[in-house]
Amino acid sequence: MAFRFKIIKKDQLSRARLGRVETNHGSFNTPAFLPVGTQGTVKSLTPEELLEIGVEAILGNTYHLFLRPGHETIGRLGGLHRFIHWERPILTDSGGFQIFSLGNLRKISEEGVMFQSHLNGSSHFLTPEKVLEIQRILGSDIAMVLDECIPYPSSYQYVKASTERTSHWAKRCLQMKRETDPALFAIVQGGVYRELREKSAQTLVEMNFQGYAIGGLSVGESKSIMLDVLEWTTPLLPENTPRYLMGVGAPEDIVNAVMLGVDFFDCVLPTRNARNGTLFTSAGKISIKQAQYAEDGRPLDETCTCYTCRHYSRAYLRHLYLSKEILSSRLNTIHNLFYYINLLRKIREAIRGGCLLGFYQSHTSQ
Amino acid sequence: MAFRFKIIKKDQLSRARLGRVETNHGSFNTPAFLPVGTQGTVKSLTPEELLEIGVEAILGNTYHLFLRPGHETIGRLGGLHRFIHWERPILTDSGGFQIFSLGNLRKISEEGVMFQSHLNGSSHFLTPEKVLEIQRILGSDIAMVLDECIPYPSSYQYVKASTERTSHWAKRCLQMKRETDPALFAIVQGGVYRELREKSAQTLVEMNFQGYAIGGLSVGESKSIMLDVLEWTTPLLPENTPRYLMGVGAPEDIVNAVMLGVDFFDCVLPTRNARNGTLFTSAGKISIKQAQYAEDGRPLDETCTCYTCRHYSRAYLRHLYLSKEILSSRLNTIHNLFYYINLLRKIREAIRGGCLLGFYQSHTSQ
Repeated sequence: MAFRFKIIKKDQLSRARLGRVETNHGSFNTPAFLPVGTQGTVKSLTPEELLEIGVEAILGNTYHLFLRPGHETIGRLGGLHRFIHWERPILTDSGGFQIFSLGNLRKISEEGVMFQSHLNGSSHFLTPEKVLEIQRILGSDIAMVLDECIPYPSSYQYVKASTERTSHWAKRCLQMKRETDPALFAIVQGGVYRELREKSAQTLVEMNFQGYAIGGLSVGESKSIMLDVLEWTTPLLPENTPRYLMGVGAPEDIVNAVMLGVDFFDCVLPTRNARNGTLFTSAGKISIKQAQYAEDGRPLDETCTCYTCRHYSRAYLRHLYLSKEILSSRLNTIHNLFYYINLLRKIREAIRGGCLLGFYQSHTSQ
Repeated sequence: MAFRFKIIKKDQLSRARLGRVETNHGSFNTPAFLPVGTQGTVKSLTPEELLEIGVEAILGNTYHLFLRPGHETIGRLGGLHRFIHWERPILTDSGGFQIFSLGNLRKISEEGVMFQSHLNGSSHFLTPEKVLEIQRILGSDIAMVLDECIPYPSSYQYVKASTERTSHWAKRCLQMKRETDPALFAIVQGGVYRELREKSAQTLVEMNFQGYAIGGLSVGESKSIMLDVLEWTTPLLPENTPRYLMGVGAPEDIVNAVMLGVDFFDCVLPTRNARNGTLFTSAGKISIKQAQYAEDGRPLDETCTCYTCRHYSRAYLRHLYLSKEILSSRLNTIHNLFYYINLLRKIREAIRGGCLLGFYQSHTSQ
């Protein structure tokens, strides 16, 4: 598959880069935020709404789609893009994060990982090779190698052994990769141990992947540890390949990580928060269920131009939320995703304009 | 408020009429189907989607909006149209149906009805006057008088007393009606007793309302009894006022009722069925969860041009339904409402073209 990463501009005062990722399904501008479409839908929204919000690429979860409806079903129906009516880039994860979240329901070996479905208890064995095959059949644009997402805290010995296994798995994925396959990204692990992160990065970079993810963060460690890990890791990754920080994060995490050289992100935060009635605004977070909004005729955010803010009051959004109406999830998700997409757009503009540091300071001081 | 009903054409072979209802918020063509927006939203859809489907008017439930967020809150926020971002006609019911569905939680007297909220058990007393006041504050275009929706079966004596009370209540509503109020419709009751239906219709028509609803149907009686009641009732209603059959119904009920002179309908059937995965198609009803659709790449209905049928396969709709995804409710609701709106459009075209009987025969023989 065609895959290219073009750096348009590098920031002078930080490691930030303005770039573009090109795939067979079009391109997306970086730094980018990819909304999560767990089960073949970014929860509550249509593809047309994602486009209107300004979304350029989304993430699909291999674990979920493998279990239901099954990658082979999706393959026979023409692939994931066609199945879900989204013709822009799709990144699929490897399922590692979900499998390792299963706790006692999974068992890991050098060969791969045995687990039981959270849906019906059925047993499955996934190997690095199988995980690439699934993503090939889904037809994704960017595939991830199978990795173990290591819990925090974990001992040095455990993290060392796990990270080595993840590197072996990455190599096995790479060895079976075909010309027509999705672009393949490795995942740097190593927990919070600098030596292990560095070793992981160096080992994977030697294998020459099309991009590198930084995994195992935002799993319980402090924010400052997360920034330390990025601080150590990104200088070891090749300049000319994209860097993807998995499952992160809050708006301030994104700004910080961009400054440390990360190119794109995925996270359930804006969409999950939306469904829980927590909304991002230019004046901070709002919990829409609060009584103070009962007769508040103002939009969520008077500076926002999203569909929700153009047409609905806080009072109506509160009413929909308390009434458990489906439209509540929709309107809130539109707003929160717009907030994120707009944040990334402003970050890109700041890099382009050479004023990222000022943007960073004004944003993180809020 | 401005309110007009214009009959454009009468069918020669049935009692059907082609017409238009004009309100301060625009007009709608009859025969019409009004989707139900129980709590200030037609479940799962935005107003823009309703317009795209071809919806011209919707129904709001006074009972639900009275309890939450409260009519006074809605009034202070500029009225129901503005609150929910729907600028076309809104009909509000009187709450009678919901209150009488509460069973032991309500107590009826000549003065009005005492009931306990299904939300929090709080006690409320609604009178005919109060119910009109609520609808006035909501700012609806068409208001209904308070009525008792009589269960089926009920004794002649009970139905007689109840129907007389409903007529007294209608009179009290009418007496307090102001020039600027919504158009006020009376509700013909009388159960399945011809004499009581006729008495109800005659009594209400003498009071001179702006329209007449036929209530207390589709509550458990057979389809043939429902048609009998319409057969007896519509000839007694004035030719030049609209006739509204409340809470009905299935597509075949609508076709039958139009032939018997009904002008518009509301029903939760298409929207509720959609959320339960039951979909109307030109080849009959489909239950989308069935295994036979697991790899079915065809649209729900190959003759349908709705958003759902233009972009998604049965396999995807089944996947969304089984995965309990919000998008499932949305796509299914769009399809079912489109089916209904399109059915009514075809009925209007058939009346206009003088071929309603042929349409009726081809439709009901399916």
